[in-house]
Amino acid sequence: MASARKFHNISGRFKMRNGSLRDPVIAYETWGQLNYQKDNAILLFTGLSPSAHAASSEVDHSSGWWEQMIGEGKPIDTDVYFVICINSLGSCFGSTGPASINPQTGEPYRLDFPVLTIEDIANAGQVVVESLGIRRLHSVVGASMGGMTSLAHCILYPDVAESLVTISSAARAQPFSIAIRSLQRELIRSDPVWDNGNYLASPNTGLRLARKLGMLSYRSAEEFQKRFGRELVPEERQTDDPFDIDFEVESYIEAHANKFIGTFDANCYLYLSRAMDLFDAADHGGSVEHALARVGATRVLIIGVETDLLFPLWQQRQIADGLDNGKREVQFHSLASLQGHDAFLADMDRFRPLICDFFNCTMNQPSRLRSIHSPK
Amino acid sequence: MASARKFHNISGRFKMRNGSLRDPVIAYETWGQLNYQKDNAILLFTGLSPSAHAASSEVDHSSGWWEQMIGEGKPIDTDVYFVICINSLGSCFGSTGPASINPQTGEPYRLDFPVLTIEDIANAGQVVVESLGIRRLHSVVGASMGGMTSLAHCILYPDVAESLVTISSAARAQPFSIAIRSLQRELIRSDPVWDNGNYLASPNTGLRLARKLGMLSYRSAEEFQKRFGRELVPEERQTDDPFDIDFEVESYIEAHANKFIGTFDANCYLYLSRAMDLFDAADHGGSVEHALARVGATRVLIIGVETDLLFPLWQQRQIADGLDNGKREVQFHSLASLQGHDAFLADMDRFRPLICDFFNCTMNQPSRLRSIHSPK
Repeated sequence: MASARKFHNISGRFKMRNGSLRDPVIAYETWGQLNYQKDNAILLFTGLSPSAHAASSEVDHSSGWWEQMIGEGKPIDTDVYFVICINSLGSCFGSTGPASINPQTGEPYRLDFPVLTIEDIANAGQVVVESLGIRRLHSVVGASMGGMTSLAHCILYPDVAESLVTISSAARAQPFSIAIRSLQRELIRSDPVWDNGNYLASPNTGLRLARKLGMLSYRSAEEFQKRFGRELVPEERQTDDPFDIDFEVESYIEAHANKFIGTFDANCYLYLSRAMDLFDAADHGGSVEHALARVGATRVLIIGVETDLLFPLWQQRQIADGLDNGKREVQFHSLASLQGHDAFLADMDRFRPLICDFFNCTMNQPSRLRSIHSPK
Repeated sequence: MASARKFHNISGRFKMRNGSLRDPVIAYETWGQLNYQKDNAILLFTGLSPSAHAASSEVDHSSGWWEQMIGEGKPIDTDVYFVICINSLGSCFGSTGPASINPQTGEPYRLDFPVLTIEDIANAGQVVVESLGIRRLHSVVGASMGGMTSLAHCILYPDVAESLVTISSAARAQPFSIAIRSLQRELIRSDPVWDNGNYLASPNTGLRLARKLGMLSYRSAEEFQKRFGRELVPEERQTDDPFDIDFEVESYIEAHANKFIGTFDANCYLYLSRAMDLFDAADHGGSVEHALARVGATRVLIIGVETDLLFPLWQQRQIADGLDNGKREVQFHSLASLQGHDAFLADMDRFRPLICDFFNCTMNQPSRLRSIHSPK
């Protein structure tokens, strides 16, 4: 399958909060057309693990991670908007990260990569925006870590985005989530194959265990109860090993973890994970309130999910309350999804209408352009 | 320090649900005096990790795991009651478990130990009760896994206990908790030192990681937020390693995990952990409702905690509703403790009055016997 990935090469030194990189590259994908006024762009930041491939396109037909949300006639309608999705700095899907070659040594950065911050990811995204000749964004959008990055972008560049959407995100990491991520990193670092970051083959045991813990923090007990109850795997898959997989819920998590390994670089995972812990909007202005007061967007949509353990509802309210200065249009939605932190990927029926409404889409109407482009 | 531990040797074959043991031993501790009528005994089952040392005594002055609850003048008043705490079959504090020597081979059982169930632990406890000449118990009490065991005891021996107390427990394991425990076991089993159960030294990396995950499931995000916020460890303890401990919450969990290793046998942990997954009261009568209908206790106290992730409130309600047949006195309490599943150990101010009230204690009154025994 052809890739729709584009690259922006940053020439020279790219300053980060804790160091700098020489000549880094930022991978991104775009959908739709930038209009003549260059005022219809939506910048999308991702969570920890996705690439910039948020949706399929003419070039790359494979489904993206937000396939149901982005496209012609979809809630973020690419007949109307020019959508840019950024592969985070520090990731491993085309953007420079710990797995990339350090041009100064000819070796991968590994643990010599500077300590990454959410602000660095936001800055790298803004460089791409500027490279496309865009001065004003219609919106910045992100969920999870992407929501943190979107918030950071709006704090660092208050004059760029007219509106902001954050989903299941936070103005600063809460200690429970720091503790979960800290343990995930320790699972990777405890894998002997990790070899203090100098692995030749991927430390898949550590990555699998970290992903399993991730799955537990991304979903909810309520969902597992409804989906799996105490169902056992079929008898032919049961073994004599008393600690082997017996319950369907164990099998489900095993399958998800096995899908993850091989796709993600371990050191990149460590850096991105730590970046979330370190994010604290209060670093910009002395308090979360002061930081949020800097945001220039005049319309904001904040969505949270009742069952989210990792970015709980009170953190969404904190963002919404902090942004509600009486001068902005602030929409806050608390969703009763069972899918926890992953609801923005799994419970599309609840999310689509809210995103559609915010972006003034005409969902469920066959789009004019789509009907023209459609093969039949 | 002298140990107050007693042992009951079971002669011959002890039948389990999945096999049998020859000549197993059950360790237990007692407090108070069995009265002439032998009707003042309270049987206490423990959670996964504690020993039978629930409280200090004249013989063993060291604090027990429920020190504030059991003793002269305390909510479970040993001036009035004869309290028996059982070290679970399968554990490693005196009772026969996977780390014990199999008399038939002269080697530790290790993974040859039969698959353990909660019912086996209840049966072993009942053997101790009978060995003491006790036909009727005033009460059976347990929290967490101990609550499951108490429930199993009352289902298997409906004529023995007059009353029942379960705290933060369940009539059957929920899939979210199965998934957490499954991952904990995998963390131990992934430690190369575990060596398929045949370790010579303790697989401490695996145990430490499993305990860390345990800590995350035993407490609550709300508590961590209040206690730690985003506090960093003192600067002199920070290192250059970007993945070392920076936040106080990481340091807290590290300290707890380090305290755990060296005290608990890895194979015992695996067996006890799996026993919780396997417990389903519905195995006795076809449904949870039918199983609970078997319980003979005429007074029951069911306590749950709003922030408990592992044994959530709905599971406490399920027990209380199932026991409420109109003929029994059923007390159900939902506590607003922030300490999650660990609240019965950490939030004593909320738990003491309920336990005291149920056992008709005269808390805060200097006890007659204590004032006699007191050194000054």
